[in-house]
Amino acid sequence: MGAESSHKQLRSASCSVGEDKTRQDTLYFDSYSDVTIHEEMIADNVRTNTYRTAIFRNSESIRGKVVLDVGAGTGVLSIFCAQAGAKKVYAVEACSIAEQAMEIVKQNNVEDRVEVIRGTVETVELPEKVEVIVSEWMGYALLHESMLNSVLYARDRWLKAGGLILPSRAELYITPISDPVVEDRLYFWYTVKDQYGVDMSCMSDFARRCIKNSDITVSTVAVEDVLSHPARFAELDLHSVTAEELRTVKGRFRCESFGSAAVNAFCVYFTVTFPCSDKPQSLVLSTSPFKPETHWKQAVLYLDFPVEVVQDTLVSGEVSMFPSEDSSRHICIHVDYTVGEKKIQSKTFSIPDWTADSQP
Amino acid sequence: MGAESSHKQLRSASCSVGEDKTRQDTLYFDSYSDVTIHEEMIADNVRTNTYRTAIFRNSESIRGKVVLDVGAGTGVLSIFCAQAGAKKVYAVEACSIAEQAMEIVKQNNVEDRVEVIRGTVETVELPEKVEVIVSEWMGYALLHESMLNSVLYARDRWLKAGGLILPSRAELYITPISDPVVEDRLYFWYTVKDQYGVDMSCMSDFARRCIKNSDITVSTVAVEDVLSHPARFAELDLHSVTAEELRTVKGRFRCESFGSAAVNAFCVYFTVTFPCSDKPQSLVLSTSPFKPETHWKQAVLYLDFPVEVVQDTLVSGEVSMFPSEDSSRHICIHVDYTVGEKKIQSKTFSIPDWTADSQP
Repeated sequence: MGAESSHKQLRSASCSVGEDKTRQDTLYFDSYSDVTIHEEMIADNVRTNTYRTAIFRNSESIRGKVVLDVGAGTGVLSIFCAQAGAKKVYAVEACSIAEQAMEIVKQNNVEDRVEVIRGTVETVELPEKVEVIVSEWMGYALLHESMLNSVLYARDRWLKAGGLILPSRAELYITPISDPVVEDRLYFWYTVKDQYGVDMSCMSDFARRCIKNSDITVSTVAVEDVLSHPARFAELDLHSVTAEELRTVKGRFRCESFGSAAVNAFCVYFTVTFPCSDKPQSLVLSTSPFKPETHWKQAVLYLDFPVEVVQDTLVSGEVSMFPSEDSSRHICIHVDYTVGEKKIQSKTFSIPDWTADSQP
Repeated sequence: MGAESSHKQLRSASCSVGEDKTRQDTLYFDSYSDVTIHEEMIADNVRTNTYRTAIFRNSESIRGKVVLDVGAGTGVLSIFCAQAGAKKVYAVEACSIAEQAMEIVKQNNVEDRVEVIRGTVETVELPEKVEVIVSEWMGYALLHESMLNSVLYARDRWLKAGGLILPSRAELYITPISDPVVEDRLYFWYTVKDQYGVDMSCMSDFARRCIKNSDITVSTVAVEDVLSHPARFAELDLHSVTAEELRTVKGRFRCESFGSAAVNAFCVYFTVTFPCSDKPQSLVLSTSPFKPETHWKQAVLYLDFPVEVVQDTLVSGEVSMFPSEDSSRHICIHVDYTVGEKKIQSKTFSIPDWTADSQP
């Protein structure tokens, strides 16, 4: 059942510890210390190999230089940087996984060059400024659990003028999709009578209200369910974007339907781009449904009811992404959209809080 | 990754509402109102068909009689009872799904015989005593979220002497297993060096501590991973067991290994048995790994380290199941065990709290 995919563990990567630590921070901190999420990230070949390639392709800019790894986790990116010739890497990690990072650094004989510092990038004191910042800060739908703010803080506080940020750009895309699994789940209730002799078809409406709620679902969108070329609605230049600008990331989109179908959701995904000092073209880490799957999958936003489109039907509107009022780490996505000649619709989505803990 | 299976939604079926409703009860109540869990239960053919068959095979005892359905959910068992000839069925359900049950009852034209009552069985007032109690009260590892207490309350308060309880008996089993997936997950960290050039083998120990913790994992055990004939360690007769006796359900077990293997977990599962008035043999709903899968799957208890066994090695000990101190709905399982000539080991397991809600 599709709904289970949204009950997975949190994957984002910033921590906040200190005297004024809130309960939400504690939960966040705890969930991140478990091994599963690190296993998932390291095992994500698209993610780990793209970072590795990007770091080695930038070895001209890294060799002999000082690097800051924001939210270093197990320290794998820091070790890549040391292997690419960095003189010094500060691997800043607030969570207890920092202890494992220290062990891994020793095991790889780079403890003279990689220094794991347990703390938040907002509070640590480095002995020097850095020439390079590397960070794997992206959450679901790019901005969920907004570790990007920590990267921007590190940039403004610790990066030398003209320094390198890996990755240096992020882009957000949206596309209308059809999700047959959800429609099958709604149809299930019509099949109960044949199976057990009890008519439960009236549950279908209730199921629609439950499933097509305002939760953002993180799941894998099949290529054949994508109904148009995706449209880019926002771009963030990590050298210039400000925390203030991240308070609302928004943009317009225009998509034209490939053919006849029923749109029952939007899919939102992101790419991040690495400059490559030794090659003319840059390197892209993409979470597009047209590219190999990553652990970020795609963010799916269900409409209340399917809308029919035919070839070239225009699906257009505006997307706004902003932090939830309940928790600034949690992202909301508001979509205003029109399909063909239909009147404008609006729906606001948010990622449910999966951090399981109901202790009073 | 196996760990995700333990992040599924709760499935148990009792509610507690009233003036003294606690926060845990509220969470419980809310999670149960979602459609996914009802979809999962109705779609579980083993569960739904066994109840249906059991009700129809007992139609001699049901025809013209008054039935109480404890925790009726969508009302499907109540409607089966009406179809089997019950004069009246009281379908007691504390959660908001009771509203859907009322609709379903109408849609099946049994509203003259099935009365859905929203409330807990501990607080509702029925106009009469009943001849039959039917309830699907079983949670993970049988007793997780202990709705059985509500059935016993209903029995003592509302069942006429000599009345029928469906099911009438429950049995608990344990068997040693090997779980290769977990060992593969631990081995993963040894493969990272080949893949990315970073030695992360030291993460394997950390992974062992994280994965082989004291959480009860709900997952499907493959037949080939079962290392001995399962041993029954407890039996509950629903006509006579008391709430006091349920405070600790325990019993000894003896298993002899089929062959050479590494035991890295115990598997706990249950069966419930329905008497059949029209047949000599009773009907069993089994959640054994040797039987078709149900949504209860099996409860898996990981040992800290694997223990080697050969053919006929004796694995024996005692299992105790008791409510968690943090939440009486949550079950703990304590196992004392010896393998062959090794000294006795003990480990206490509990089901993690998946009720996601970290709102402060």
